Amino acid sequence: MNVLLVYAHPEPQSLNGALKEFSVKRLEAAGHTVRVSDLYAMKWKAVLDADDSTEHVPGTAFSPSLESKHAFENGTQSADIAAEQDKLKWADAVILQFPLWWFSMPAILKGWVERVYAYGFAYGVGEHSDTHWGDRYGEGSLVGKRAMLVVTTGGWEPHYGPRGINGPIDDILFPINHGVLFYPGFDVLPPFVVYRTGRMDEARFAQTTDALGRRLDEIWSTRPIPYRRQNAGDYDIPECTLKDAILPGQVGLGVHVAR
Amino acid sequence: MNVLLVYAHPEPQSLNGALKEFSVKRLEAAGHTVRVSDLYAMKWKAVLDADDSTEHVPGTAFSPSLESKHAFENGTQSADIAAEQDKLKWADAVILQFPLWWFSMPAILKGWVERVYAYGFAYGVGEHSDTHWGDRYGEGSLVGKRAMLVVTTGGWEPHYGPRGINGPIDDILFPINHGVLFYPGFDVLPPFVVYRTGRMDEARFAQTTDALGRRLDEIWSTRPIPYRRQNAGDYDIPECTLKDAILPGQVGLGVHVAR
Repeated sequence: MNVLLVYAHPEPQSLNGALKEFSVKRLEAAGHTVRVSDLYAMKWKAVLDADDSTEHVPGTAFSPSLESKHAFENGTQSADIAAEQDKLKWADAVILQFPLWWFSMPAILKGWVERVYAYGFAYGVGEHSDTHWGDRYGEGSLVGKRAMLVVTTGGWEPHYGPRGINGPIDDILFPINHGVLFYPGFDVLPPFVVYRTGRMDEARFAQTTDALGRRLDEIWSTRPIPYRRQNAGDYDIPECTLKDAILPGQVGLGVHVAR
Repeated sequence: MNVLLVYAHPEPQSLNGALKEFSVKRLEAAGHTVRVSDLYAMKWKAVLDADDSTEHVPGTAFSPSLESKHAFENGTQSADIAAEQDKLKWADAVILQFPLWWFSMPAILKGWVERVYAYGFAYGVGEHSDTHWGDRYGEGSLVGKRAMLVVTTGGWEPHYGPRGINGPIDDILFPINHGVLFYPGFDVLPPFVVYRTGRMDEARFAQTTDALGRRLDEIWSTRPIPYRRQNAGDYDIPECTLKDAILPGQVGLGVHVAR
């Protein structure tokens, strides 16, 4: 199988660098073909702007979504964007690996999402009407592929627990797992999170790579997070709200997971 | 009073550009002094890397946090970072204005946070021990200042409602409001959110600026979101988990707001 590892850390001699190297070796040893988008090493352009297409939409102010649509449809996207889209099409599984900075992904990776996730590729896919609000959240261009986050954080696990002050890790990662990965169709696996990275010694590193290795070995068999598909009957359209009969009265991020 | 508006949109001739211009005029008409950090116009460097300090920590691999600490303590931060920190110190209120891209802030603004929020300035402040886990979440360098998000999104309001498929807007913005603003000490005001930006006509624009104008007029009197302060007795330290006696059995992001 083909695995794309999108990796965002500035220093190869880091925990993240070591975990990335470990993952590549483990996946290759299992017979998979691995490609790495090492965003810092690639000097990835983080900022979405008018230079992202080779042909500006004539007579218009720069509109991020319209410009993206035009460039995607007309083959006038900047080459670095098209290359990453090709890697996504090639991949059977995608891993996003990054340190959690300010409770989200590093800017360089956020900019990868913004630029590579073109209109017509990752959003604006399918009919948008009063009866069908796009092929998204379980449908879309990337359906049939798997995705998983590998995240490191300096905070302690209880800080990200159900009543931890940072917020539960699944809620903090919801905008990424649900909003970035499930949205264009990925099956999203539970994240692999390494806590308290400031206290990493040889023994803990060995435990960590053992656990990560098992997750990589099971990447094709792990049950995805059972997010509800938008167009499978659970939501009123076009409001895109969970139907009254499902988990009546309950609110919050958790209602979008079918437990 | 002094207001800093940090603004992230690539096109001046946009809804965001118009709302930014409106806000500056409204605040100035009320007698406030306004400074704008227009990140796209400034060509803000979005990517945190070793160039962010003028003096590398000798003999070390690049560590984002240790390098930031060293540069902040020794006055060797890159000039653009120090200038933004000075603006934050100067401000009585800070507005972050941006389009919601993939359920978070644009990469250029995320990179502003990562680079300006230095170790010793926005994190790593105060004692870190088994009895005091830093001056954060209601304490810290920016205490006494107010902050507010002004956010635009193409999605409909119900898509971001309590049972909307995108997740409730307060939960989606929690990593920013709580994790980026409350963390270093800001009093965080409820966000001003403009939905369904694709359907903006003159009448709706007038309604929108009326509503935004009222929020700006009331920026000094609006009650902040009552996030719980980490060191005011509600949390067990160092686990930083909500004490068992408070909202027993409840979990999720909402428990950190004292309603």
